[in-house]
Amino acid sequence: MQRFSPEFRSSLHDLLRWRRDVRHFKPDPVDPDHLNACLDAFELAPSVGLSEPWRIVRVKSDQARARALQNFQAANADALKGYSGDKAALYSKLKLSGMQDAPEQLAIFCDEETVKGSGLGAATMPEMRRYSVVSAIMAFWLTARAYGIGVGWVSVLDPVQLRADLDLPDSWALVAYLCIGHPQEQTDSPELQKLGWEVRDPSLARWREV
Amino acid sequence: MQRFSPEFRSSLHDLLRWRRDVRHFKPDPVDPDHLNACLDAFELAPSVGLSEPWRIVRVKSDQARARALQNFQAANADALKGYSGDKAALYSKLKLSGMQDAPEQLAIFCDEETVKGSGLGAATMPEMRRYSVVSAIMAFWLTARAYGIGVGWVSVLDPVQLRADLDLPDSWALVAYLCIGHPQEQTDSPELQKLGWEVRDPSLARWREV
Repeated sequence: MQRFSPEFRSSLHDLLRWRRDVRHFKPDPVDPDHLNACLDAFELAPSVGLSEPWRIVRVKSDQARARALQNFQAANADALKGYSGDKAALYSKLKLSGMQDAPEQLAIFCDEETVKGSGLGAATMPEMRRYSVVSAIMAFWLTARAYGIGVGWVSVLDPVQLRADLDLPDSWALVAYLCIGHPQEQTDSPELQKLGWEVRDPSLARWREV
Repeated sequence: MQRFSPEFRSSLHDLLRWRRDVRHFKPDPVDPDHLNACLDAFELAPSVGLSEPWRIVRVKSDQARARALQNFQAANADALKGYSGDKAALYSKLKLSGMQDAPEQLAIFCDEETVKGSGLGAATMPEMRRYSVVSAIMAFWLTARAYGIGVGWVSVLDPVQLRADLDLPDSWALVAYLCIGHPQEQTDSPELQKLGWEVRDPSLARWREV
């Protein structure tokens, strides 16, 4: 029987509180043993029907990095066109990816056609496979933060273009592009809140009843 | 500066290892203070553009519970028809939801049309809103396990029917139906592996490089 202490629960709360989406990285490399320990978290994540649909791609070559960065820059320029006035001015100042600094970069895909798990639990909600991948990313992210490693999830990307540029199978859907490295600073508040884009609303963490 | 100790990292690994998708619950009620502490984890979860698109619904009334259960039973009967031979025999013996026993049940939705966050990060990948909700569910799930509370994620459901039955807005997409309570047993292996449906493949937790 595995029990967890009040002290552990308090530290877990701190871990959640100090987890950040990091966009400002130091250039220092990540300890390979620590990175492997973070990858181990994938295996422990929940997956629908035990399908384990995560496919992990380390984006390492200059060519792959350049294509991914170009993808982000084009998508970010397009996104800026969707804002006007003060919001556009603020958006243009935000740093939304650490792709030019992060020493490690992983593209995480979902194999939408995996036969592992024999489709259990995914008949009415096939999106459960992608949700399984997100669960694994959270397990990875929290483990990384416990090692002092920062993770930034970049979503300002054309996912189909990225898959094609990295020459990966058509059945793989991009779920996340992760920038990984040591953060320039540590904080317990979201950068978007500090910079005035949006604020947290704790009332959303409460239920309505039916 | 918030640092985490090697002891904490070891306990976090245990937490991930002993987290389970629970389908067998004791009838004992869940301590409301503990449940509130688990809900607090939603606020600390990452969300695209700080959109916090999670919408939490406590399914409590007899009528709402009956409709949800009927939804599961119909979807499960349909799913069984997709298997034959030994796989069908095994599927019919699996318990895929604790909806008849779990003292607390939460339906978690994503508000696909929220204006919070002003669409930041969701232009090319609008699914990021649902992924944010999944991240919050993982934060909730791990916190619950740290309190000894079990969570089971039911996905054998018609999501559109459930939203209609619970009379919720059309812009809300069902992400998860969570059964919550004290588990009948604690284990570090997935039930689907123990019952011979599927096995874990640790090689999937490693990368390929591009």
